[in-house]
Amino acid sequence: MRAALDELARVGYARLRVDEVAIRADVNKTSVYRRWPTKAALATAAIRAIGWGEAMPDTGHVRSDLVEMMRHALAIASTPDGRAIFRLLTTEGADPEVDAIMRDLKADLCARRAELVTRASSRGELPIGTDARLVVEAIVTPLMTRVFRDGEDVDDATVQRLVDIVLTGVIHGGGRLVA
Amino acid sequence: MRAALDELARVGYARLRVDEVAIRADVNKTSVYRRWPTKAALATAAIRAIGWGEAMPDTGHVRSDLVEMMRHALAIASTPDGRAIFRLLTTEGADPEVDAIMRDLKADLCARRAELVTRASSRGELPIGTDARLVVEAIVTPLMTRVFRDGEDVDDATVQRLVDIVLTGVIHGGGRLVA
Repeated sequence: MRAALDELARVGYARLRVDEVAIRADVNKTSVYRRWPTKAALATAAIRAIGWGEAMPDTGHVRSDLVEMMRHALAIASTPDGRAIFRLLTTEGADPEVDAIMRDLKADLCARRAELVTRASSRGELPIGTDARLVVEAIVTPLMTRVFRDGEDVDDATVQRLVDIVLTGVIHGGGRLVA
Repeated sequence: MRAALDELARVGYARLRVDEVAIRADVNKTSVYRRWPTKAALATAAIRAIGWGEAMPDTGHVRSDLVEMMRHALAIASTPDGRAIFRLLTTEGADPEVDAIMRDLKADLCARRAELVTRASSRGELPIGTDARLVVEAIVTPLMTRVFRDGEDVDDATVQRLVDIVLTGVIHGGGRLVA
C-alpha cells in the first residue's frame, strides 16, 4: 500500500505500473496481482488505506459522531497522502478509470457516514425520515471543499458550528424526506 | 462573449486564442484586446456572462432569496455552457491561470451570496453574528457537487429541504460566530 501510494503520488494513475509498485515494495509482481488483479483494484486499496476505509465513530451521540467523523476526514486530508490524492483528482479526475475509482470510494464512504444519521434516527435522537445523505453532505462537502479546492485550513470551531447548524435544523423540523 | 464561450468549450483554456475568438465573432482582434487586455480577462468575462455575474434575488425574505439563488445557480449549471465550464475545471483546473480565474469568480460570487445572509441578519430575520459564508456554503456546495461531480439532478424539493435545515438551524441558535 505504501509503495502504491508513493507511486501514485509520483507518476499519477495513467502512468502507474504494477511492476514498479512491486519493485518498490520489494515483492514479486505475481503476489501483487494475486491480491489486486487490476491496477484499479490496487489504486482503490491504496487510497482506502490512507484512512477513508476505517470504521466510523460510534459514541452513542450523533453530534459527537459527526464531529469525530469530520475531524478524522480533515486530518486525513491534511496529510501528504491526502493532498496527493486530491492532486490526482484535479489532474486526472477526467480519466474515466480515476473517476470510477473515486466514485466507488465516495459511495462507500457516504453510505457509512449516512449510517451515523440513520442510527441516530432509530434511537430517537433525530426525527424519523431525516434525509441522512443530505445531512452528511451538508456537513462534509463545504468543509472538504475549503480544504481541497480553496487550500484553506478548517478549524475545530467551524466543524462544530456547521454540525450544530445542521443538527439543530434537523431537530427543529427541517430536512424531513416526507413532509 | 458567445464566441469566447464557444471557443473555450471547443479547445479549452490553454489553447484558447484571442485571434480565433475575434474571427468567430467577426470583429477586429484589436477591439477584443481593447476591452479585455488579456486572455484571462476575456475568459473571466465570458464565464461571468453565462449568468453567475447576475444580480442576487432580493425578495425581502431570506428563505426565498436563498431558494431563488440556488435555483438560478442550478439552472445555469445544467446548461451546455455550465457543463462546458465544469469540464474546463476538471480537465484544466490544475492550470494556475484557470485556477486563478475560477477563484476570483468564486470569491465574487460567494461575497454576493453572503450578502443575502448579512442582509437578513440586519433586518432581524437571522441572529446577529451568523456565519454568512458558512451558511451559504452549507447550501451551495453540497448541491453543486451533486450536479457537477456526481452528475446528478437536484430537484426543487431537495433545494428547499436543505435551505430549511440550514435556516432552521441558524434561527434556533446554531452557527453563531461568537458564542
